[in-house]
Amino acid sequence: MVKQVDLNCDMGESFGPWKMGNDEAMMRYISSANVAGGFHAGDPTTMRRTVELAREHGVAVGIHAGYRDLVGFGRRGMQVSPREIQDELIYQLGALREFARCCGMEVQHVKPHGALYMAAARDEELSRAIVEAIRQTDPDLILYCMRASVTYEVAKEMDQPVAAEFFADRGYNEDGQIVFTRRVEQELDAQQVAERTLRAVRDGKVKTDGGADIDIELDSVCVHGDTPGAPDLARVIVEHLSENGVEIKPLAGIRKAST
Amino acid sequence: MVKQVDLNCDMGESFGPWKMGNDEAMMRYISSANVAGGFHAGDPTTMRRTVELAREHGVAVGIHAGYRDLVGFGRRGMQVSPREIQDELIYQLGALREFARCCGMEVQHVKPHGALYMAAARDEELSRAIVEAIRQTDPDLILYCMRASVTYEVAKEMDQPVAAEFFADRGYNEDGQIVFTRRVEQELDAQQVAERTLRAVRDGKVKTDGGADIDIELDSVCVHGDTPGAPDLARVIVEHLSENGVEIKPLAGIRKAST
Amino acid sequence: MVKQVDLNCDMGESFGPWKMGNDEAMMRYISSANVAGGFHAGDPTTMRRTVELAREHGVAVGIHAGYRDLVGFGRRGMQVSPREIQDELIYQLGALREFARCCGMEVQHVKPHGALYMAAARDEELSRAIVEAIRQTDPDLILYCMRASVTYEVAKEMDQPVAAEFFADRGYNEDGQIVFTRRVEQELDAQQVAERTLRAVRDGKVKTDGGADIDIELDSVCVHGDTPGAPDLARVIVEHLSENGVEIKPLAGIRKAST
Amino acid sequence: MVKQVDLNCDMGESFGPWKMGNDEAMMRYISSANVAGGFHAGDPTTMRRTVELAREHGVAVGIHAGYRDLVGFGRRGMQVSPREIQDELIYQLGALREFARCCGMEVQHVKPHGALYMAAARDEELSRAIVEAIRQTDPDLILYCMRASVTYEVAKEMDQPVAAEFFADRGYNEDGQIVFTRRVEQELDAQQVAERTLRAVRDGKVKTDGGADIDIELDSVCVHGDTPGAPDLARVIVEHLSENGVEIKPLAGIRKAST
Repeated sequence: MVKQVDLNCDMGESFGPWKMGNDEAMMRYISSANVAGGFHAGDPTTMRRTVELAREHGVAVGIHAGYRDLVGFGRRGMQVSPREIQDELIYQLGALREFARCCGMEVQHVKPHGALYMAAARDEELSRAIVEAIRQTDPDLILYCMRASVTYEVAKEMDQPVAAEFFADRGYNEDGQIVFTRRVEQELDAQQVAERTLRAVRDGKVKTDGGADIDIELDSVCVHGDTPGAPDLARVIVEHLSENGVEIKPLAGIRKAST
Repeated sequence: MVKQVDLNCDMGESFGPWKMGNDEAMMRYISSANVAGGFHAGDPTTMRRTVELAREHGVAVGIHAGYRDLVGFGRRGMQVSPREIQDELIYQLGALREFARCCGMEVQHVKPHGALYMAAARDEELSRAIVEAIRQTDPDLILYCMRASVTYEVAKEMDQPVAAEFFADRGYNEDGQIVFTRRVEQELDAQQVAERTLRAVRDGKVKTDGGADIDIELDSVCVHGDTPGAPDLARVIVEHLSENGVEIKPLAGIRKAST
Repeated sequence: MVKQVDLNCDMGESFGPWKMGNDEAMMRYISSANVAGGFHAGDPTTMRRTVELAREHGVAVGIHAGYRDLVGFGRRGMQVSPREIQDELIYQLGALREFARCCGMEVQHVKPHGALYMAAARDEELSRAIVEAIRQTDPDLILYCMRASVTYEVAKEMDQPVAAEFFADRGYNEDGQIVFTRRVEQELDAQQVAERTLRAVRDGKVKTDGGADIDIELDSVCVHGDTPGAPDLARVIVEHLSENGVEIKPLAGIRKAST
Repeated sequence: MVKQVDLNCDMGESFGPWKMGNDEAMMRYISSANVAGGFHAGDPTTMRRTVELAREHGVAVGIHAGYRDLVGFGRRGMQVSPREIQDELIYQLGALREFARCCGMEVQHVKPHGALYMAAARDEELSRAIVEAIRQTDPDLILYCMRASVTYEVAKEMDQPVAAEFFADRGYNEDGQIVFTRRVEQELDAQQVAERTLRAVRDGKVKTDGGADIDIELDSVCVHGDTPGAPDLARVIVEHLSENGVEIKPLAGIRKAST
């Protein structure tokens, strides 16, 4: 029997004349695109193009909503009230949904970006605000977060569909949390990353930076588009998974099929 | 028999800590709120509050989409391509639709703002792009524009529901076009404006600045929230219309009832 | 002998079409204007007008530099690196200095705004970065801060001219720190505030919110332009000080005269 | 005798996490850097780094001031009043001057960017406003513009130091105006561009796109950093000029030496 897993990546992070990432190349390998909503990156034209590109490749789309901090790319912590986060999330989600509608697509998921993702992972009130915003707009949207996070616990408790992410290109500590790195500077050993990912997907195991072997639960594998050599890394991961009987497919599709 | 007419006003034009207009007061008199979409004015929290306020008062909402020029309030001409205008309109429309959804409301209309409204009034390609953007997202949305504009002609030709606006607080020339004024500085004679509006609504006539009497077609009366004494002006207009058998009602509701 | 004290207020906090405060009225009473530099509030045209207005009233100008967060008005904490704060401070200071040059004026002081002011008050590295930025550009600039702050200690240690502020319209606790209030909502008793200010200026004493009497050192009295009735409050303070032999004068002028 | 000419290029056009151009490579060849002031591109940290880089390479700096349109990169026409352009120019100039001061440098020149550059070239009132802004702040600053422009005529009439630019990587028409191209997409023949530049510099002649030979006056050669292969192009130009006895030097230095 074929095992299936979702592969997600941040997309649409260009802004006006400034390009970021290689969306065309990455779209060939991933199954879910986290589309920047315009607050930390992205603009309306970039969003439309990203959604069109996703449709061409059969890739599902989700809103990637970060703090309203363009120059800081949403990577700087900000003391924004949960209520404002809700409003900003709903705003960006609506924008994406409208582009998806134009393309005959539906929005699959919500993923907080950068410093907001990390803040929510530790903050119950913020996580609750995010889940509530989703429930007010479309309760079927899947919230992407870390398995070892408050966000995951809150979503489960509130009966919100949730996806535990495995970060293919980041290290893990003994608590199952990723070792935060702003950006991987050196090219990674693609084969090694692919084997690590296969082991996590198939066996639910990952070796930590400290050398221990821990259990890991995952619904989606995340690769970063700004990791050097990202498209090649994605290709090797996908090929290695495929050779070992694991197929890449959007999470909503996997779940629908399994019910 | 009771005659009905729509009364629209720009709303939600505050930004962050800066307030503009008196939305609470104006909502009591109008039937359609043009909600700023965040590019020339407005922000997610202001949008949500404006939609909530509209719902409380039974006021319909539409997206008020202007050029991406916050410091200039969308009042400065910009050479933006029709394609970018489409993307920016869809983005802002989607954001509003999402807030409306949270409130159990539907979006009723689209109104370009300021310099974009005036540019479209003269430019067929731009008007066509706006109508196409609406058709791609929700063909039932009503496009608000001047009767004497290219936008109106293009919308009619493309079978797009359209609303001809009568500007209660602006002068008219012989071509049925408003005499452009950035902002009325002096308080207007409310009774005079009310009588002028009633005559336009009931008899389809308006006296121009030059003194001639011309025919005027209208579906909606527009009042500006930044005209000095705007809430009082709106109140006097509404009372005068009411005393003369004209009821204020959202345009979509009027049209639905008439079919 | 006449005692002299500086009276400072935040100015130039309008943005594009949005007005904030009543700068024209406040300028008549104050001696030092903290001019918003464009990142949390203000824009080039507003800055120029504010500097021109200050010159007309013989008021000294300083740069009021906040986090780059317009929608949040620089009142939300942000994890910005000290290095970036330096760059943003130098940028805004230079802009103000150029407008001052056009008006034949010199920049007198630097005052961090809002959340940045409060963060620096607790953070040595950040305070040091701010002082270093000033020393690189113009070592004579006076840094405005709270007496009971790390910023004050660091500035003294680094031999940077510094001004301890007394907040006329805020409460104090036993540590000589202000009781943080985002905005005073109710109109204050002007006479009471004036008496409290005179006592602080003349006797170096203030009664805390808890009722204790503590010593207070001050170089400048700060009044907030967004406190309800601010111009009247300022007028009453100035008149009460004047009637009791205290004259309002820019701090640089006071210090120059005393050396 | 050695002939000298200035070589200028747009620099510091990155924004936050988004990189543009290869400033490190270009700085090795040019003598004057047009530093983006933050309105169409650039941010405080990028400005500081660009000024530091210029100092390392003995390159003079000038402010590159465009319309306040980040997403459009200042390339879209905007109806901004001459008065606002003055304020925005002074703001950005001051910011650059402050960074220059920190580096022990002086600002050499002013160059309007993109759509503002082109608008001023045709508009006397706008050109006059720009020259007046410069005269109010520092009359010695050199204004860079096209020889065949209203800007040049106005500057000359107002006795403002002015530099006529020759665009190495753009075509010319019979009126001595460049054939506007948003961005050169294909790599140019470097040797051909170098020969064309040498001929313009040494002989004051250029062949138009139509094949005619016209006279051309120039004070500075402009190369675009976003032309494909720009650093190589710049290197070949500089080498070819050098081999033919033409030395690259900042314009202010050339003029100082000649007086």
